Amino acid sequence: MSAIYLVTDASLCDQAGHTLEFVVEAALQAGVRWIQLREKEETTRNFVRKAQQIQQLTQAYGAKLIINDRIDVALAIDADGVHVGQSDMPYALARRLVGPDKIVGLSVTNLAEWEEAEAWDVDYFGAGPIFHTDTKRDITPPMGLEGLRHMRQHSQHPIFAIGGIHEHNLDALMQTGIAGVAVVSAICSATDPATAARRLLHLTQHVQSS
Amino acid sequence: MSAIYLVTDASLCDQAGHTLEFVVEAALQAGVRWIQLREKEETTRNFVRKAQQIQQLTQAYGAKLIINDRIDVALAIDADGVHVGQSDMPYALARRLVGPDKIVGLSVTNLAEWEEAEAWDVDYFGAGPIFHTDTKRDITPPMGLEGLRHMRQHSQHPIFAIGGIHEHNLDALMQTGIAGVAVVSAICSATDPATAARRLLHLTQHVQSS
Repeated sequence: MSAIYLVTDASLCDQAGHTLEFVVEAALQAGVRWIQLREKEETTRNFVRKAQQIQQLTQAYGAKLIINDRIDVALAIDADGVHVGQSDMPYALARRLVGPDKIVGLSVTNLAEWEEAEAWDVDYFGAGPIFHTDTKRDITPPMGLEGLRHMRQHSQHPIFAIGGIHEHNLDALMQTGIAGVAVVSAICSATDPATAARRLLHLTQHVQSS
Repeated sequence: MSAIYLVTDASLCDQAGHTLEFVVEAALQAGVRWIQLREKEETTRNFVRKAQQIQQLTQAYGAKLIINDRIDVALAIDADGVHVGQSDMPYALARRLVGPDKIVGLSVTNLAEWEEAEAWDVDYFGAGPIFHTDTKRDITPPMGLEGLRHMRQHSQHPIFAIGGIHEHNLDALMQTGIAGVAVVSAICSATDPATAARRLLHLTQHVQSS
């Protein structure tokens, strides 16, 4: 699977003059194989409809579609999995609702949250923010590269770093040996999302093979 | 079951100086046996926690707890059912996710929506608004008593009227022969929600036995 994980933000796509579908397909064409659909403003009906549209794209490219927070939406479209944060469905409930065969990813924003969850059967951790980020309005203190390195050394689970990740800091993150990075604005806000995704993927491959 | 169906609005309860739990328990003590938990602003985690708290009350009183819109929350707490509106999960998907044994109620705001859904296995319709209401910000043209009467005569399903229902117009609604009325502000905004609920129940019983 790709080391770049796209987490969507429809309003950022819109601000950049693109539809969400256009950005997702651009990322898929570039080689991204993890798409997380994140919708906090849509009605349930629109979220389901949009998820079905995005699923046609992810299935065509053999990519994973993960639904953020909304397990009802994930179940309705039979998505590949869900991603839950610390304000979403508690992990054990989420796992019970989607079953053992689906992907369940969990956000951890600090080492205490990671330590609590390390023994659970999470499929991956989304760890961050590592750096300062403008994507999330609530200010969570960054975990830093040191925190990420500690997690990487002691965790049995794949880790995707998230939060404020762009071309210039991607190398330092990948050097910690994590599975990949989750990006939002680096692709959603790009004038040319396909090129942005291709450059990010190239940078991760450079590190992985070095 | 009671002919009064309480649909919660936590902010109205708060404005009236009460907690949601206080209002729900007051309604249960008065004899209300249908509680619909409606939360549009809460995080999923808080919604689940609140639903678990309310469920302790509904179970203690032998009342039904129905979750508005969020099938994930309903599944997580094993609620008695879900209520979906026209912007929520499409009915067939909602039914498939919760299974045949749970209650699924459907909002219809006009006769066309009702006609489309009449052949489905809905457990009840929430029909309205019948009158003008201030609870919902989006202005849906009222169905009117004539529309409600038409539905009542031709529907195989129980009907609860909803929207702008208070003591003064409850009698006219119940005279149409519907199963009951769903109220929001008539109980949530009441200074004394137990007395408000008792008076509403008394009015429905008066009509039912007359």
